Amino acid sequence: MTDKLWGGRFTAKAAEWVDQFGASISFDQQMAAEDLEGSLAHVAMLGKQGIIPQADAAAITAGLHTLQAKLAAGELKFTVANEDIHLNMESLLTKEIGPVAGKLHTARSRNDQVATDFHLWLKHRLPELLKALTNLQTVLVEKAEQHAGTIMPGYTHLQHAQPITYGHYLLAYFEMFQRDYERFSFNQQHTDMLPLGAAALAGTTFPIDREAVAKTLGFSSVYHNSLDAVSDRDFALEFLSNAAILMQHLSRLAEELILWCTYEFNYVEMADSFATGSSIMPQKKNADFAELTRGKTGRVYGALMGLLTTMKALPLAYNKDMQEDKEPVFDAYTTILGSVHIFAGMLESLTVHETRMHDATTNDFSNATELADYLATKGVPFRQAHAIVGELVLKGIKTHTTLQEMPLPELQAAAPQIEADVYAELSSEAAVNRRTSLGGTAVTNVIKEVARAKECLADR
Amino acid sequence: MTDKLWGGRFTAKAAEWVDQFGASISFDQQMAAEDLEGSLAHVAMLGKQGIIPQADAAAITAGLHTLQAKLAAGELKFTVANEDIHLNMESLLTKEIGPVAGKLHTARSRNDQVATDFHLWLKHRLPELLKALTNLQTVLVEKAEQHAGTIMPGYTHLQHAQPITYGHYLLAYFEMFQRDYERFSFNQQHTDMLPLGAAALAGTTFPIDREAVAKTLGFSSVYHNSLDAVSDRDFALEFLSNAAILMQHLSRLAEELILWCTYEFNYVEMADSFATGSSIMPQKKNADFAELTRGKTGRVYGALMGLLTTMKALPLAYNKDMQEDKEPVFDAYTTILGSVHIFAGMLESLTVHETRMHDATTNDFSNATELADYLATKGVPFRQAHAIVGELVLKGIKTHTTLQEMPLPELQAAAPQIEADVYAELSSEAAVNRRTSLGGTAVTNVIKEVARAKECLADR
Amino acid sequence: MTDKLWGGRFTAKAAEWVDQFGASISFDQQMAAEDLEGSLAHVAMLGKQGIIPQADAAAITAGLHTLQAKLAAGELKFTVANEDIHLNMESLLTKEIGPVAGKLHTARSRNDQVATDFHLWLKHRLPELLKALTNLQTVLVEKAEQHAGTIMPGYTHLQHAQPITYGHYLLAYFEMFQRDYERFSFNQQHTDMLPLGAAALAGTTFPIDREAVAKTLGFSSVYHNSLDAVSDRDFALEFLSNAAILMQHLSRLAEELILWCTYEFNYVEMADSFATGSSIMPQKKNADFAELTRGKTGRVYGALMGLLTTMKALPLAYNKDMQEDKEPVFDAYTTILGSVHIFAGMLESLTVHETRMHDATTNDFSNATELADYLATKGVPFRQAHAIVGELVLKGIKTHTTLQEMPLPELQAAAPQIEADVYAELSSEAAVNRRTSLGGTAVTNVIKEVARAKECLADR
Amino acid sequence: MTDKLWGGRFTAKAAEWVDQFGASISFDQQMAAEDLEGSLAHVAMLGKQGIIPQADAAAITAGLHTLQAKLAAGELKFTVANEDIHLNMESLLTKEIGPVAGKLHTARSRNDQVATDFHLWLKHRLPELLKALTNLQTVLVEKAEQHAGTIMPGYTHLQHAQPITYGHYLLAYFEMFQRDYERFSFNQQHTDMLPLGAAALAGTTFPIDREAVAKTLGFSSVYHNSLDAVSDRDFALEFLSNAAILMQHLSRLAEELILWCTYEFNYVEMADSFATGSSIMPQKKNADFAELTRGKTGRVYGALMGLLTTMKALPLAYNKDMQEDKEPVFDAYTTILGSVHIFAGMLESLTVHETRMHDATTNDFSNATELADYLATKGVPFRQAHAIVGELVLKGIKTHTTLQEMPLPELQAAAPQIEADVYAELSSEAAVNRRTSLGGTAVTNVIKEVARAKECLADR
Repeated sequence: MTDKLWGGRFTAKAAEWVDQFGASISFDQQMAAEDLEGSLAHVAMLGKQGIIPQADAAAITAGLHTLQAKLAAGELKFTVANEDIHLNMESLLTKEIGPVAGKLHTARSRNDQVATDFHLWLKHRLPELLKALTNLQTVLVEKAEQHAGTIMPGYTHLQHAQPITYGHYLLAYFEMFQRDYERFSFNQQHTDMLPLGAAALAGTTFPIDREAVAKTLGFSSVYHNSLDAVSDRDFALEFLSNAAILMQHLSRLAEELILWCTYEFNYVEMADSFATGSSIMPQKKNADFAELTRGKTGRVYGALMGLLTTMKALPLAYNKDMQEDKEPVFDAYTTILGSVHIFAGMLESLTVHETRMHDATTNDFSNATELADYLATKGVPFRQAHAIVGELVLKGIKTHTTLQEMPLPELQAAAPQIEADVYAELSSEAAVNRRTSLGGTAVTNVIKEVARAKECLADR
Repeated sequence: MTDKLWGGRFTAKAAEWVDQFGASISFDQQMAAEDLEGSLAHVAMLGKQGIIPQADAAAITAGLHTLQAKLAAGELKFTVANEDIHLNMESLLTKEIGPVAGKLHTARSRNDQVATDFHLWLKHRLPELLKALTNLQTVLVEKAEQHAGTIMPGYTHLQHAQPITYGHYLLAYFEMFQRDYERFSFNQQHTDMLPLGAAALAGTTFPIDREAVAKTLGFSSVYHNSLDAVSDRDFALEFLSNAAILMQHLSRLAEELILWCTYEFNYVEMADSFATGSSIMPQKKNADFAELTRGKTGRVYGALMGLLTTMKALPLAYNKDMQEDKEPVFDAYTTILGSVHIFAGMLESLTVHETRMHDATTNDFSNATELADYLATKGVPFRQAHAIVGELVLKGIKTHTTLQEMPLPELQAAAPQIEADVYAELSSEAAVNRRTSLGGTAVTNVIKEVARAKECLADR
Repeated sequence: MTDKLWGGRFTAKAAEWVDQFGASISFDQQMAAEDLEGSLAHVAMLGKQGIIPQADAAAITAGLHTLQAKLAAGELKFTVANEDIHLNMESLLTKEIGPVAGKLHTARSRNDQVATDFHLWLKHRLPELLKALTNLQTVLVEKAEQHAGTIMPGYTHLQHAQPITYGHYLLAYFEMFQRDYERFSFNQQHTDMLPLGAAALAGTTFPIDREAVAKTLGFSSVYHNSLDAVSDRDFALEFLSNAAILMQHLSRLAEELILWCTYEFNYVEMADSFATGSSIMPQKKNADFAELTRGKTGRVYGALMGLLTTMKALPLAYNKDMQEDKEPVFDAYTTILGSVHIFAGMLESLTVHETRMHDATTNDFSNATELADYLATKGVPFRQAHAIVGELVLKGIKTHTTLQEMPLPELQAAAPQIEADVYAELSSEAAVNRRTSLGGTAVTNVIKEVARAKECLADR
Repeated sequence: MTDKLWGGRFTAKAAEWVDQFGASISFDQQMAAEDLEGSLAHVAMLGKQGIIPQADAAAITAGLHTLQAKLAAGELKFTVANEDIHLNMESLLTKEIGPVAGKLHTARSRNDQVATDFHLWLKHRLPELLKALTNLQTVLVEKAEQHAGTIMPGYTHLQHAQPITYGHYLLAYFEMFQRDYERFSFNQQHTDMLPLGAAALAGTTFPIDREAVAKTLGFSSVYHNSLDAVSDRDFALEFLSNAAILMQHLSRLAEELILWCTYEFNYVEMADSFATGSSIMPQKKNADFAELTRGKTGRVYGALMGLLTTMKALPLAYNKDMQEDKEPVFDAYTTILGSVHIFAGMLESLTVHETRMHDATTNDFSNATELADYLATKGVPFRQAHAIVGELVLKGIKTHTTLQEMPLPELQAAAPQIEADVYAELSSEAAVNRRTSLGGTAVTNVIKEVARAKECLADR
């Protein structure tokens, strides 16, 4: 741009911003390997189809291999003057092999090339993310097995509701990450499609073989409409939606871990690796990485909102607006991959204060439901049972007596249906273990679900 | 709340807001049918399992049937005093059958009940949405077939790039809505899960049969973790993500239709049903419904962002925050269903100005790529071919001569490889029909893809 | 639309949706009073300027007054057939006074009319919101005064950091709501502008007097560009931004109140009016309204994102997309007004467990900083002081001894600079009261800031 | 972290991510100058107040000056091991001057330090942004003056509605950017507040002088509540809200410029500096920077949504989540500053096709309103006038006759009130110039508003 004439005062100022604004090489160099990979598949096809001479194809292939080696060695230098990764690579290839490099761009356009690179980029990375989710789920299952019988308060409205087990709690997150796993697996379907061959927007006049290129690159299918191929960013939006939902899960888990680390809850303790202290207050362990992940939820939600906004009301086919598609995806990918790894480590290394958890279930009235259920089994209508128990609890609060501490006659005065077998029903262990309905927190259930979860992981 | 003592100045003011704020009946009455349906399945199971006497179950069943009939007849009156649809129904049932109604709530809680209603609500409506998408796709295919050969300019950066056909353009949207169809189909998987039986959060002590309830209600699976069952809103977030992506597609199509309706483009004309005029300017037809749909993109994006925000960092299990989950889903559903129906009608009844479209491709230099490709087939490296054609176009602009109007010697002066066969390559028809690469805009391709699309629709 | 011919299959289906989709009367009837108010000012001006005969103006004015009376009495019936509030009112006026009603629309258009109604609507409501914020701030100041010396743990990372007072804590929110107050006050500036007179987009040929209309309606200024007048929704976006920031503040306060209501923290107890119980667990008080407000944060964030999206890339001047502007504003207004009122009542009626709060500051090492500061005043470099105290705390944790329980020689062994005066520095009271720096938590500071806050409120 | 023991499989993997995740130096080094500036003000105060010896203060001051010089020379090396800019600077200072560096941190904490740096960062940059807005407004006024009489179609629903002037159009954007200017000016108020002295959360025990520090740093006020000082990010959220609204304006302008550059509209031509061509299609000038700015609207909306989400429901005071506050602000700042500069240059250097614009207003029926207004001045009720004109237009469309081409008897047959003076009213010039109502598009109005706009700019 430096050779341009800048007439006006403000135009001159604008000139300083133009290059910085327009160039994408600062971030699209992350797709350097994919750009070379795509070019290799393309040139092989061009040669095989006779679109360019085999000798030229061979020369270009050799040049691309050289660039691959240099890239791996960190020897490629990209410049803003060459705008984006595609022009940078073309320029570097020309330096390697001379003007024959120009033939590589036969039967393609930057529009289908960038779409291809972007698809490849995500296609290569989703398996890594799925593996990380599997790791996190594995930790959850291992810990759930270990803590199938570790009793803790179950909460609604952040109030003690009924006792559950820590193992049961962990399996709730197993289920959430399982759905995340399924969503990202589904996301592969729309990622695993080859746009190359759509050219600028309408297809090409050369006798290309898109299915051969797809096979070389490992794509399962090809786009069947050239306009769609260069205009579509659904795969990226799906990815960001999935990432947002995943962060929502992590933010919930983070919130609870942060709570449980407080002086007041004190249910768990973070390993040093996942906490930062204060030099002055060594007793203080901040759950920094849980907090940071919770904070990064905003980053990923913002990335989704950003790309949705960018794509709103864009006419077909390529528009420069779409240059804004990659940064949110790259950033969200790094964020969620790191978050998932960190949570796996954090949960694996977490110290659980089992006694503290258990004690929290015995000094309150969270067994009130037990008594009501007991009454219901004796034939008292549910709403009436509730009212009876409510009266008893109120009385207990006034007299500082828990339900299990009340003598039988006192209980019977409230409801004659109550018999001596009631006390066995009022312990936390009983409360947990009577919840044997499918999906309930009973220890036997947790063990059963651990087995089911292991099978699910083994099937991958 | 009216019997409460309100001590302070501001507390009294607050009291006026509390009921309005806390009650959900204004919107959750949309799930009235689902609430009854869920209760019927629940009570059948309670009776069958012997959890409540068969006679009670029969009485409750009869009462629920009465309520169903009254609901259908518009005779049920809901009150804010009864807060939500569940308490309203319980109160109405009690009026019908007396205190035995209380037994219906045995072995369930509002937490799993509301989750069940919400799942059922969406499960019942997704097929309607899928059908609407099929309708829209059907219109696209029919019109694509009719216009397989209708030539129009293809755009990049909203500039004429290469001629395409209107049929090819329509099929690009067919592909987009196909992915939407697949996403909403996938969404069914996580919607089609029964939470009922999770009770408040931990499962229940009653010998319930969740799989029987699932069968009655048509659910394919049940939640395997009670905490997850009452805390999970993934199915709603998936729905809203899919809705946002769908609106993004519609907003793009809307943008183009609005453009094409302008005096300047004048490619299409809306049927009167989808346009509003001005009484004073009858020539002016505003593409109101395209504009409105484009505007409603904001509504749906906002719904997604809203629920993501609400769910961020919520501890398990139920929290009152989650009462905010339904309105965005209800609103987004109505919005997208209406939008899809309207676009089907709008496209079906659209008048296409074929001549105008075609002419727009012949007075410009959008066949420049044709000439470059021609040169490339004659062995000129791609980048060099580009430069040659660029020179010719510049010359043409100065002399107001299109490429096809330039005499052969003039062309050969620029590139000796050019021969007399070049002219046949320079018409819009040739440009379109030479793009026979898979997914390209050639008429034969469009016809082939129409057949493929029809098969896809036939398989549903 | 019912008299339209619907050719196609899908067009017929679409027809069912068109009216529902296009009509705005379901929500814009909320501006009925403003519509009449604007019309009254308009017709008065038309008459005075001689644009329409005075007799006509008088007839129209009388008709509008009749409509005002009927509106107040709930006697106006609006219909979807008349689409929006403007056409409904015109139709109703015609019924009242006959065809002369048609003259009311002279020199205006629905485009400037709807903008005027919308400005008026918000202009009328901002003062109510500001008053509610003042109420909330008043509660905060009153409670801060009462609790200027109520000691509680101050948190960072949700870990005990240093003791503060509850009064100091409340004043932090006073400051936040003060900024909200300032933002909504600033919002008035761009709301308090009259669009009427811009007509459809370009102004009008009639000799209107916009400043007279502005004066009648109480607007401080008029739009100086007709295109801007009908295209601008900045005032609505400002409102939604401010609403989002306000909800962010309320969500933080809500989060803390919910935490403090837990069994584990137990710092406060909600008045019954702001909590819901469980019939079975009367000890359980869910902070429902705090949770609901926290949840509604999503709703308001979504409204902001929605309107930002809708307005993105809209060409001037009016487009039908803009019909989507009102619902988010109406909904957000009700949400924040109600939330602010509820929080005022909730805080006013909150029971504070002072002893529990105080005790939480004495059994831990949150006075570690005190000791470090003490060392620093004795000349020990800050980082070194930190290290020394860190060692002592570690030792204390092992031996279950707090710092104030350690004998002087033990302290001196760690740092010879420590003298007997150290113990006075280690109590929570001392820790609080030594923080006399401007803005610090010392009781004297809190009292000073209460006075300052009262002055601020008195100035309104 | 490398010296940590990593017990588990997954914990080891997590370890690889921890440093990258937790460190902020990659982005907070952008506040390096502010960090030094804040430290210089702090140490000067510490010395003056006798909190540290004057000699120590002098040594630290000298060290900080050295670091300033090195920073300016690009000689400072920051490391991830030192996490953030604050610890990096402390480490570098210690290298310069030894352990006395540790005294700099007396009476402050990273919590108030980072808040101070962040406030300073934005406070320093807002004036630059305001200047850029002034530049853009200056271009708009200059061009509006030049084009006060350049007639073009005014649009509603993207349909020709009434003729306006390009000058009038530009002034609409002047008004929008004026409001942006006012919003960012207001934003200064909450940015221009000093948090330093709040220490970790509760203030400090040292006799600091916060007002002296504020004066040194140029802050107008200090936070009056220490908890608020370290917890508040309103100034950042205000900035992002304002940035989002500004991008909304730019996206609208961008949309119109892109449209106007099309072959179909052809109203304007971008200077080469702001367009990219195709080597092969030199006639094709893509409005790349308008498109890119429109696309970046998503980026800025996303940044706002991101930070709102991050701050939702965060308890006081500092939490690690808040580390996510800076990147969205830094990124949005660069984006909007660049966009504003680019639009100033783009508009200044834009070629306007005046004849083309004018012609577009004469071949249609956009003067229909003129005729209706003409009838209304003759006493025909407005709605009736509309109906009459509608009939005439319909007739004209059928006969390919514009209104001004219809003979007088034909017009009079439709409305006897029409006289010979009607034709003068039907030209675009007349239509424009009769709109002399305040804010209307008449050329005299535009000239008047240009003068008003110049005064507004001169007052800055």
